[in-house]
Amino acid sequence: MIKKLIDEIRKKNSPIVVGLDPKLSMIPEALLKKSFVAYGESLEGASDAIYRFNRAIIDAVADLVPAVKPQIAMYEQFGLPGLGAFKKTIDYAHSKGLIVIGDVKRGDIGSTSESYAIAHLGKIKVGSMEYEPFGEDFATVNPYLGTDGVKPFVDVCHENSKGIFVLVKTSNPSSGELQDRLVDGKPLYEHVADKVNEWGKSCMDGDYSEVGAVIGATYPEVGRQLRMEIPHSFILVPGYGAQGGTGKDLVPFFNSDGLGAIVNSSRGIIAAYKKPEYSKFGDENFSDASRQAVIDMKKDINTALDGALN
Amino acid sequence: MIKKLIDEIRKKNSPIVVGLDPKLSMIPEALLKKSFVAYGESLEGASDAIYRFNRAIIDAVADLVPAVKPQIAMYEQFGLPGLGAFKKTIDYAHSKGLIVIGDVKRGDIGSTSESYAIAHLGKIKVGSMEYEPFGEDFATVNPYLGTDGVKPFVDVCHENSKGIFVLVKTSNPSSGELQDRLVDGKPLYEHVADKVNEWGKSCMDGDYSEVGAVIGATYPEVGRQLRMEIPHSFILVPGYGAQGGTGKDLVPFFNSDGLGAIVNSSRGIIAAYKKPEYSKFGDENFSDASRQAVIDMKKDINTALDGALN
Repeated sequence: MIKKLIDEIRKKNSPIVVGLDPKLSMIPEALLKKSFVAYGESLEGASDAIYRFNRAIIDAVADLVPAVKPQIAMYEQFGLPGLGAFKKTIDYAHSKGLIVIGDVKRGDIGSTSESYAIAHLGKIKVGSMEYEPFGEDFATVNPYLGTDGVKPFVDVCHENSKGIFVLVKTSNPSSGELQDRLVDGKPLYEHVADKVNEWGKSCMDGDYSEVGAVIGATYPEVGRQLRMEIPHSFILVPGYGAQGGTGKDLVPFFNSDGLGAIVNSSRGIIAAYKKPEYSKFGDENFSDASRQAVIDMKKDINTALDGALN
Repeated sequence: MIKKLIDEIRKKNSPIVVGLDPKLSMIPEALLKKSFVAYGESLEGASDAIYRFNRAIIDAVADLVPAVKPQIAMYEQFGLPGLGAFKKTIDYAHSKGLIVIGDVKRGDIGSTSESYAIAHLGKIKVGSMEYEPFGEDFATVNPYLGTDGVKPFVDVCHENSKGIFVLVKTSNPSSGELQDRLVDGKPLYEHVADKVNEWGKSCMDGDYSEVGAVIGATYPEVGRQLRMEIPHSFILVPGYGAQGGTGKDLVPFFNSDGLGAIVNSSRGIIAAYKKPEYSKFGDENFSDASRQAVIDMKKDINTALDGALN
C-alpha cells in the first residue's frame, strides 16, 4: 500500500493528507439544519451532517491530494450512528480514488491487537463468508505495549497489502513526558524508531516498508534526526497549520528524493471557510474554501521542498 | 464511580471482573447456528450470536461479580453490527446492576482524547439535546501521549462521576520493551505510576481516586511495588488464568484492607465450558460453566487474600 501512496503522491505532486476530523461547530448552519430537519437533533442527525460535510470536502479535494485521514474519535463520540458516518466516509473516499488513513491509534496485547488489525485493515471470517469491517488502507498504531501489540498489525498488513504508522513522537505539547525520557542515553522515541525499522523489515513494498512513523510537525528537529534513522519508513506528519507547523518546518521530514513524508492538515482545511483569509467564500461555499486551502498548503510545502532540495 | 465499585465489591465479596471478550470460536454451535439462521453468515449474524452469548453469561454471573469488562476490539472486528453488540452488552449489563469497564485503551492528543472520553464516559451535545454515546462507567486509557492525552478523560470523569484505568504495566510478554526501560534509574512504568497519582489528586471519591492503573497479574513483583506507590488508586489486574496468573500471585496487588484491586478473567470464565474441568456442563449449559468458574475464581482469590491478610 505504501507504493500506491507514493504513486499517488507523485501523480498529484502533493505529499498532503486531509484530516477529516469534523466537529459540529465546523459545519455550516444550513447543512446542519437540513440534517436536523431530516433526523432530528439526534446522533443520527449529527452523523448525517458530518457525512454530508465530509462528502463535499472529498469532492472538492479529491483531485489534489492522495489521501484523507478520518480521526475515528470524532465519529465515535456520536456513538453507533457516528461510526456509521466513519464507515460511509471511508467508502466514499475510496469511490473517489483516495487512499484512507484511519487515525485510530489502536494497540493492545497480541490477540486483541489482531482483532483491531482485522477491524481496520483486514477481513473477518463469519462461517464460510469473509467481510471487510471498516476497510481503511492504513491505520495509526500505539506502541506502548511493545512488539506483541504491534506485530499482529504488521502481519495483517502483510496479508492484505495494507500499512501502518506507529506513534513515535506525537505533535502535542506533553508528548515529551514519556516519549522524550532518556533511556540508555537516547530518548524513548528513538527506541521506538528502532523498533519501526525492525518491524518494517519483513514488510517492504518497493523502497519503503509498510511500517511508517508518526512524528509531529511541531518537532522539526526530531524529524530531521529520525529521517536519517528510519530511511525506509514514511513519516506521517500531523500538526501543520492549526497546531503550529509551517512549510519550512516540514523539510527535515523528507528524504532527498522529495519523498518519505506525508503531511496532515485537518482543521486548517476542513474549517478553512471560518478563517479570515478564506472568509470570502462564505458558509455556502465552504468546500471551495477547503480546496483553496489545500492549493495554498501544497504551494507552501512544495516551495519549501523545492528551495531545500534543489 | 470508584466508590460504587468498592461498594459492589464489598457487597458481593468479590474483587472480580468478567472480561466479555467473545470470539466466534467460543460460542456454542447451537447458539451460533440460531443467529446464522436469523441473520445469515453475516456481520449481523455474528454480532447477534455474540450479544446472546454475553447475555447468557451476564445472567449467570450478575449476582456474583460487581462488574464486566467488554474488550471493544472483539466487537470492532465485526464492524458496525459488532459495535452495536458492544453497546447492547453495556446496556444489558447495566440493566442487571453491573458496573461496566470499557476496555478501549484509547488515548490521543488533547482535543481528540476529549472526544474519546465523551464517547465512552461522557455526554455529547447535539443542538439542544444531549446523548450518552456508549455509556461505560470506566474506560482504560493509554498514557503514551502524556498528560494532555489523559487529562480530558480525567475532566470527563470528574463531570460525570466516572473512572479510568491507565495502562501502567501491561500483562503481555513484550510489555517490558518500553515500559520497563530505565529512566532516571527507575522503570518507565513507575514514572507513569507517578502520573497516575498526580492525575488522580483532583478526582478523589472517598479513599480512592477515579484514576486507577492497569498492572498485569503476570508481573506480581511490579504489583507489590506499585501497590505502595499509588495507595489511592485501584489496580485493574488482567492476566489471571489464561495468561498465567493465579490467586496467590494476586495478593500483592491488594491493600491491607483487602481492597485496591479488581482482577479480570476473560477466556477462563466465558469459555469455561471448553476446559476439561467444566466440560461436564456441556455446550448447552455453557453459562453454568461460567458461573462455576467465577465461583472457583472467587474462592481462589479470597482464600489467598484471607491467608495473606489475616
